[in-house]
Amino acid sequence: MKLGTLAIVGVGLIGGSIGKAAKERGLVERIVGIEPNADSALWAVKNGVVDTVVSEVPADADLIALCVPSDLVAPWVITLADHAAPIFDVGSVKGPIVKAVEVTQSTASHFVPCHPISGSERSGPQAADGDLFDGCTVVLTPLATTASVAEQTCASFWEAVGASVVRMSPDEHDAALAVTSHLPHLLAFAFMGQVTDQHLPLTGGGFRDFTRIAAANPDLWWRIMQLNHEALSQALDDYSNNLRALSDAIESGDQSRGLALIEAAAQKRQAADPSAP
Amino acid sequence: MKLGTLAIVGVGLIGGSIGKAAKERGLVERIVGIEPNADSALWAVKNGVVDTVVSEVPADADLIALCVPSDLVAPWVITLADHAAPIFDVGSVKGPIVKAVEVTQSTASHFVPCHPISGSERSGPQAADGDLFDGCTVVLTPLATTASVAEQTCASFWEAVGASVVRMSPDEHDAALAVTSHLPHLLAFAFMGQVTDQHLPLTGGGFRDFTRIAAANPDLWWRIMQLNHEALSQALDDYSNNLRALSDAIESGDQSRGLALIEAAAQKRQAADPSAP
Repeated sequence: MKLGTLAIVGVGLIGGSIGKAAKERGLVERIVGIEPNADSALWAVKNGVVDTVVSEVPADADLIALCVPSDLVAPWVITLADHAAPIFDVGSVKGPIVKAVEVTQSTASHFVPCHPISGSERSGPQAADGDLFDGCTVVLTPLATTASVAEQTCASFWEAVGASVVRMSPDEHDAALAVTSHLPHLLAFAFMGQVTDQHLPLTGGGFRDFTRIAAANPDLWWRIMQLNHEALSQALDDYSNNLRALSDAIESGDQSRGLALIEAAAQKRQAADPSAP
Repeated sequence: MKLGTLAIVGVGLIGGSIGKAAKERGLVERIVGIEPNADSALWAVKNGVVDTVVSEVPADADLIALCVPSDLVAPWVITLADHAAPIFDVGSVKGPIVKAVEVTQSTASHFVPCHPISGSERSGPQAADGDLFDGCTVVLTPLATTASVAEQTCASFWEAVGASVVRMSPDEHDAALAVTSHLPHLLAFAFMGQVTDQHLPLTGGGFRDFTRIAAANPDLWWRIMQLNHEALSQALDDYSNNLRALSDAIESGDQSRGLALIEAAAQKRQAADPSAP
């Protein structure tokens, strides 16, 4: 794959990583960033994350990456309604984005909703990593009106930066991500509520791993949990039932029940990641 | 520090790591293991984790590490009542161990209850790591009758393998570890209950970190959660209150409340581990 100009709207962790990944792999001739934060913009140019920062998406852009908060995706798609290039976003919740675009842009054919399942508790272009998408899964949730050529360009781009592409409906995506990503963040944030300074010397690697996602960007995560609150609420109910079953077994000393639940969990986790437990 | 003979009862992950750490740092002349599992015993000798495996703690041992399940610590202390060497254990829950020893060995002066806050979801001598205790905290919860010379020998040994030593009461230890270790394991085990094979391609680094401790040894963790169920139940209640406050804020769209809770959690987590979020 070799494109002319890649436009990245929002040069933070994800946008910056897209820029670095494309540049390091020689996928594009030129990368322009659109970034309202002057510090981030300056840093990104100085450090070669993008070639230049401009105020509008150039008319000759060949691919447009919208790396903006979810509620800003539909407004950007409207702004770019007459642009010829394929446009993808990177939002963590697809249903509301797709609905907002469908309501306002019922004929949008060049917009390809995407979600790279990567990321980090860090943020900003300083944390950008050209290998962030290497080995990660990117979910595409195309609209009924999405042109196959636009979809194919975006899929090829993701594969060129090392990702695997899967397709599903926005609702399927949001229900699955509520379990695999949004609920863990909710639980980790809640867990930190009772941790005090006195606890910190008494923590080990398990605590550090379990709580790492609680260091994530609060604004971003408040938005994600708000946008996906229905699926998140369902996942939380299922989790609460599992937690009650296990804590009841512990309280009542029901070893056969409790151990069976723990063994099932351990086997599932070991199978999920056999090489690097 | 230079001791003659170190006896390690139970050559698994922790016992094996103690052996390797002592050997690599030249702290002892000889290491003998007492290990009923023939495969582990053979592997440990072949791979130099211990020098030899014997059936009983030698009379000339200068330090004895009891790396056995918590409920076997008191029986071993009774068996070794007349031994002259300092004895430490490595159990994750101190109250029940200390009570069991005090009941049966009211004059025990050479037993030093210890808990190295390290470990891994892996187990067995194959997972042993001579640097496991480097930078970790070891909690000592001495009995009223513990001789200061025994306590000092154990403390010096832990410091010599890279650990920092803190002292507290068994109840203080158990309440703190319920929060920092036992509750995270309970939550991670419960969380895995709703994860299916279909979810696995849709997971990223956050999921992997959050769930890593769910791969831990089920028998070991059932015992720990049983032994510390009172403090664990208290920690679970506090957690449930925090979780309800945050999920209520999400459901009701109460941004000022929800964001404040998330920001407090994120700040605490960032402060806990600023160098490696």
